[in-house]
Amino acid sequence: MRIYDIIAKKRDGYELSDEEIAFFVKNYVSGEIKDYQASALMMAIYLNGMTDRETVTLTLEMAQSGDMLDLTAIDGVKVDKHSTGGVGDKTTLIVAPIVAALGCKVAKMSGRGLGHTGGTVDKLESIDGFNVALSPEEFIRTVNKTGICVVGQTGNLAPADKKIYALRDATATVGSIPLIASSIMSKKLAAGSDCIVLDVKYGSGAFMKTPEDALLLAEKMVTIGKGAGKRVRAVISDMDTPLGKNIGNILEVKEAVEILRSGEDSDLTQVCIALAANIIVLAFGIEYNEAESKVCTVLKNGEAYGKFLEMVKAQGGDVSLIENTVNFRKAKYRKEMLSPADGFILATDAEKIGSASVVLGAGRATKDDIIDYTAGIILHKKTGNKVQKGEVIAELFADDEGRFASAEEMFMSGFIFSEKEAERKPLIYKVVE
Amino acid sequence: MRIYDIIAKKRDGYELSDEEIAFFVKNYVSGEIKDYQASALMMAIYLNGMTDRETVTLTLEMAQSGDMLDLTAIDGVKVDKHSTGGVGDKTTLIVAPIVAALGCKVAKMSGRGLGHTGGTVDKLESIDGFNVALSPEEFIRTVNKTGICVVGQTGNLAPADKKIYALRDATATVGSIPLIASSIMSKKLAAGSDCIVLDVKYGSGAFMKTPEDALLLAEKMVTIGKGAGKRVRAVISDMDTPLGKNIGNILEVKEAVEILRSGEDSDLTQVCIALAANIIVLAFGIEYNEAESKVCTVLKNGEAYGKFLEMVKAQGGDVSLIENTVNFRKAKYRKEMLSPADGFILATDAEKIGSASVVLGAGRATKDDIIDYTAGIILHKKTGNKVQKGEVIAELFADDEGRFASAEEMFMSGFIFSEKEAERKPLIYKVVE
Repeated sequence: MRIYDIIAKKRDGYELSDEEIAFFVKNYVSGEIKDYQASALMMAIYLNGMTDRETVTLTLEMAQSGDMLDLTAIDGVKVDKHSTGGVGDKTTLIVAPIVAALGCKVAKMSGRGLGHTGGTVDKLESIDGFNVALSPEEFIRTVNKTGICVVGQTGNLAPADKKIYALRDATATVGSIPLIASSIMSKKLAAGSDCIVLDVKYGSGAFMKTPEDALLLAEKMVTIGKGAGKRVRAVISDMDTPLGKNIGNILEVKEAVEILRSGEDSDLTQVCIALAANIIVLAFGIEYNEAESKVCTVLKNGEAYGKFLEMVKAQGGDVSLIENTVNFRKAKYRKEMLSPADGFILATDAEKIGSASVVLGAGRATKDDIIDYTAGIILHKKTGNKVQKGEVIAELFADDEGRFASAEEMFMSGFIFSEKEAERKPLIYKVVE
Repeated sequence: MRIYDIIAKKRDGYELSDEEIAFFVKNYVSGEIKDYQASALMMAIYLNGMTDRETVTLTLEMAQSGDMLDLTAIDGVKVDKHSTGGVGDKTTLIVAPIVAALGCKVAKMSGRGLGHTGGTVDKLESIDGFNVALSPEEFIRTVNKTGICVVGQTGNLAPADKKIYALRDATATVGSIPLIASSIMSKKLAAGSDCIVLDVKYGSGAFMKTPEDALLLAEKMVTIGKGAGKRVRAVISDMDTPLGKNIGNILEVKEAVEILRSGEDSDLTQVCIALAANIIVLAFGIEYNEAESKVCTVLKNGEAYGKFLEMVKAQGGDVSLIENTVNFRKAKYRKEMLSPADGFILATDAEKIGSASVVLGAGRATKDDIIDYTAGIILHKKTGNKVQKGEVIAELFADDEGRFASAEEMFMSGFIFSEKEAERKPLIYKVVE
């Protein structure tokens, strides 16, 4: 078997065999196949696509290229969720304790933020003492004890995906739906859970700009998950606008805690309920309405909040901070953003607002940047709200006052005002089963 | 400007600007752009094509990436020919002296053979003493003195093409007509002649398998040449069957000398007349019929042969060998191939016969192989000929008797016999002006 022939076959629009895909993954990881051959193949796949069978095979081969997490020592249904990335997306902080409170086992590996999208691991680390670097043994012991544990990616998880993704990132071959789907799902499969709910975002702040593209990606990921023998669903939700009010690590933890304590309704709450209820459907095989009702119960009766406190305690975090979020560290500087006109907010561009939060210090422009956990944005007004000229629409926070000028410009460029009220888009576009 | 954006633009089917193409060529040669980025771009070009403007720009940029031969010190019209490669293709040995005898200046760089196709430089070097490695000054002095000089590629000619071609060869992106055309033409443009006639072959022994593909390639090359301000034509000729009777270096020199001496009619003679006449049309702006008549005159009256002798003498070759070709070195072993049946020859597959000649030692399977100048094949019968069982259809020559077994098998697999006479295909399919 020669990589040349495999490239030529895909170039000419033919379907690759399982053996050919396995040959590519194995020999690319080992270095036998060169980067320049792999990138030609990626471009051919980008332009000619892959069938579902090819995509499932590629995903499984990438998942099996490194460690496969063994969760058999955990009793009960192991569940996982994954978001394709958004601005203000703190759903894991809320959904994980909800489903743990309902008896699911959440043995979750999360990522760090890059660019305008945040990462759950950064948010958790903004809680003093919170340890995301548990050993595999501690991880499993913690899940067995409290039903929930969220750690950073450890071990050698899907190294083929890591190598292929880095290459795609440098060769304009990221935006292929079968390749995105296989990249995400390879890590999910290696992470070992039984049930996976995917939160697929669409809009300006998401990788998929349209609901139609998000649907294609969601369907492909569900197909892969099922092909690999998992219970899997995808919820497609809006990311034209940041989710919730707060953007930035400590600010997002605070907002999540408020929701877990109060159960108060909001766009964030609705997305969290939908994600949690779909996990419960998969985990226990009950109807959606029943699952949703259970989710709302534990959110309102404090059981989900209690589970969150258990998690923080078990992972070494300062529980007193959660109980008194006013004690969280605060940014040195605060700046109010004022509405320049009377009228309605037509759009609050998630990508621009996310980028403004990176400028303030809340995120990383490159992998090596250091995050300021206190930096970020609180939105007082969002798409659809009525505003008066001079009214505070948001607050920016930073430890370095010099960052405000460019952050403010970036932030305000994301706000579009109008004399007329904007049409409301549904928060949840579709659920793919 | 970023290579990422250039790849993405071509991936999405847009036309690249001149600046973007220049940026790619310059920075790929310098190493700023990586092989894996260049190969992704090549695959995007392979699948999405290039407009004529893009192709002309790429060709000029590649031509200008190294030395541009300066032929201004040569008086008169500088002419060049190029063959896309074939089996038994010794046309340069005949065409170059014909057009030199008619007053053109032939300052020609030729290549070496690889795979089943031969190279003019190897053929000339099979003449004892013939020197193809002249300095630029000797090269120009020789052309000014005798009107003809054929040397190997010297200097740093189109290094961008060399680097890009090697990459394409490893990434299944060779077979793109705009890329093939720009690769060939970049070297022709760097070689500095005013008039270029392209001999584009089609058929089993050629890179282009069908006349339609050869026509597309020919048209693209003529477009590029004109776009670069050259006078250029392309002759599309058959390479399903080897050209002429002899295959192998000394054997081909002998056949060329026979034609130059006798002017005898054959498929080889006809292709040479067509190529030479088209060169004369371009060089002197006369009608084709008049050009053809001039060509036939110098071929019949010995002037072309005289010019060939002048060339051999000027480049240090042993003229006595040309005058008495029986004195050329001969292979140690000879083996006759016999017709297995009565009937007609339906096909003599040029690729298989060319490959058999490589097995005998006449060519290189890899760049580092050493050629046996005496090895090769003489065809006594070709497509369309009537044969009787047991009649000699060919002779194989080798210095190593052990090579006959596999060469014979390869050779005979290229012969297809039939009870009925084969339809004749035209030798010249089309001329592109």
